Amino acid sequence: MTDYTQQLDGLRQQISALDADLLALLARRQQLTNDVAETKIKAHLPVRDTAREEKLLIKLIKDGQKLGLTPQYVTSLFHVIIEDSVLNQQMLLAQRANPDSDRPLNRVAFLGDKGSYSYLATQKYFSRRPGELLEIGCKSFNEIIDKVESNEADYAVLPIENTSSGSINEVYDQLQHTSLSIVGELTHPVRHALLVGCDTDTKQIRTLYAHPQVFAQCSHFLAELGNVDVKPMDSTSAAMLKVSELNDPTVAAIGSAAGGELYGLTAIESNLANQKENHSRFIVVARKPVEVPLQIPAKTTLVMSTVQKPGALVEALVVLKDNDINMTKLESRPIHGNPWEEMFYIDVEGNLQDGPMQMALDQLKGMTRYLKVLGCYPTEEVSPTKVAAANALSE
Amino acid sequence: MTDYTQQLDGLRQQISALDADLLALLARRQQLTNDVAETKIKAHLPVRDTAREEKLLIKLIKDGQKLGLTPQYVTSLFHVIIEDSVLNQQMLLAQRANPDSDRPLNRVAFLGDKGSYSYLATQKYFSRRPGELLEIGCKSFNEIIDKVESNEADYAVLPIENTSSGSINEVYDQLQHTSLSIVGELTHPVRHALLVGCDTDTKQIRTLYAHPQVFAQCSHFLAELGNVDVKPMDSTSAAMLKVSELNDPTVAAIGSAAGGELYGLTAIESNLANQKENHSRFIVVARKPVEVPLQIPAKTTLVMSTVQKPGALVEALVVLKDNDINMTKLESRPIHGNPWEEMFYIDVEGNLQDGPMQMALDQLKGMTRYLKVLGCYPTEEVSPTKVAAANALSE
Repeated sequence: MTDYTQQLDGLRQQISALDADLLALLARRQQLTNDVAETKIKAHLPVRDTAREEKLLIKLIKDGQKLGLTPQYVTSLFHVIIEDSVLNQQMLLAQRANPDSDRPLNRVAFLGDKGSYSYLATQKYFSRRPGELLEIGCKSFNEIIDKVESNEADYAVLPIENTSSGSINEVYDQLQHTSLSIVGELTHPVRHALLVGCDTDTKQIRTLYAHPQVFAQCSHFLAELGNVDVKPMDSTSAAMLKVSELNDPTVAAIGSAAGGELYGLTAIESNLANQKENHSRFIVVARKPVEVPLQIPAKTTLVMSTVQKPGALVEALVVLKDNDINMTKLESRPIHGNPWEEMFYIDVEGNLQDGPMQMALDQLKGMTRYLKVLGCYPTEEVSPTKVAAANALSE
Repeated sequence: MTDYTQQLDGLRQQISALDADLLALLARRQQLTNDVAETKIKAHLPVRDTAREEKLLIKLIKDGQKLGLTPQYVTSLFHVIIEDSVLNQQMLLAQRANPDSDRPLNRVAFLGDKGSYSYLATQKYFSRRPGELLEIGCKSFNEIIDKVESNEADYAVLPIENTSSGSINEVYDQLQHTSLSIVGELTHPVRHALLVGCDTDTKQIRTLYAHPQVFAQCSHFLAELGNVDVKPMDSTSAAMLKVSELNDPTVAAIGSAAGGELYGLTAIESNLANQKENHSRFIVVARKPVEVPLQIPAKTTLVMSTVQKPGALVEALVVLKDNDINMTKLESRPIHGNPWEEMFYIDVEGNLQDGPMQMALDQLKGMTRYLKVLGCYPTEEVSPTKVAAANALSE
């Protein structure tokens, strides 16, 4: 047995050394692709060249096969590598176009405290951006917006929709009254785990702390659990704090494993949500709009109310269609104090500077009672390189 | 401009050279992890050591951050690397336990022809396995099963369920009567694209060819498309062949981009399914059951009919629960010619050789009219390494 242990140790040391080499190569690759981005900025070339990407990926798949690597392995790996490279290049371009957004310190307001899903999303969004991050936890969406409007924060990160519980209406309603602009978006996986503060197991749990929306998303798990007291909390981080303070084998919180760790909690069950694919989409807002270079994919968010006649909304949507503008989201919200009218929030693909977008906005102005651009911002989603070739059946 | 072109060319050559180094490192890493697997086989150790994986990943994330790589980038990459390594090690163990399944040629029966989703799943499953692959396209599930039963094929790959359209009852009904065993499983993404044979665009399409289930899965897209003739075909590959033969700018097929390429078709729109997360699960069946080593995660599929009294099924399920056996799927099907009885197909996590599994089967034998193990096989899904540490907020 000791022989095997020694063999394993030797192999593992070799793997660790090799992984260090891998990281160094990846860092060098990132440097090279950033240099490519700098050159493309000067030459006014688009970031992505999907035909080139496909050719490269097919070559990599073939070379990988010769080395005994499966096509799906090489494809999955280079999807991750190319996605990171594209995101970095896009960020570089966005920075060049908005030099004054380059700050040594980014003060960011978000809902909850360390460990909340908004906190994790904030960490993720700013991890790719230069400057230190100062997190400002807030108790309400109102407080978050206030912080940015009053210049106590530079950015706010706001959840706008969730794949299982839908749009977050409170945030949409805040957007109706604010002078802030949307400057970015991101999606973040929401993976609910059962978090405990001391040595225990699921059967011993009698009291559960979580945000009400989290309970709703995990209703099947709660039904299976049976006889348990459910305690709604203001935020996921408040639930975690509570459980860490109680230090009791009969209590647990529901939240992310990564967040729970910040409170010394351990995940004893994971994947608690009814829907296994559970993501939240967040928007990032600031006092000033950003300019999105035409070389990178952009989204634009509009808010409008139509005139009171039948079919007015449809006519407005036809304007988008006729200008070949793809709508990715439409959300309607009642207008406070005006029960006969509705406010429509529309996300479209495209840059505010595009000709067709300007044309559509001009036409819409004549047809709506109210129209405002909430922001134009870089699209976060990077579509994977397609490999359609017969010899690269990787998916 | 030529200056920029030269600069870009230079940078790209460096990236290509670096990618070749990356592939070589990855191939070397695969060799090392296979050596680890060989040692583990001799030492009777489990394939995965998740505590070790987590520690390693946290170290990689920290080292990556020092090099300017984001935590989510390093995490995503090493999830892919670890998943591939785990799958390879599991396959190695499974091979050692079933030396007679090592053939120079694997003859595999599947539904449809080159380009069908079953064809792509077959390619994927056998790409990780030694031996040449001989694909035998069939017209029906019955024919597929026949081929294996009569030793004209070694394996059959059968779709068993789809995330959007549910279980494939015809396959379940075939399993009721066959002597074959389930020896493997895999899931494969189903990404429907609009495939055309000549230069055209979506607006010109008047006739659409596809499998009826594909039409069902893309009903929203069809509704948007409007005035189009829908022609149901026996299989996706038949639809592709038809469109490639017609060579007409007003016709299109729906199928995967990778499959379409085999017929010279181009994808002009993708992501056509109503549900964006669209996967099919396939089972692999053979004449002889396989032995699954206890070191790798296994699933077992049972089929049973209960005695005719109220609550009989529930009692059977309680037996599984009391033996701590997790059920991942339950499917009921009527028994032909016996309208009062039903056949239940049950997938559970666990190895047939496990003590609790043997105990549960013994108890079930006494409670059911009919009980058969359809197969015990390696679980295909590899759960990603968890990183819960506070300094590795990677998700």
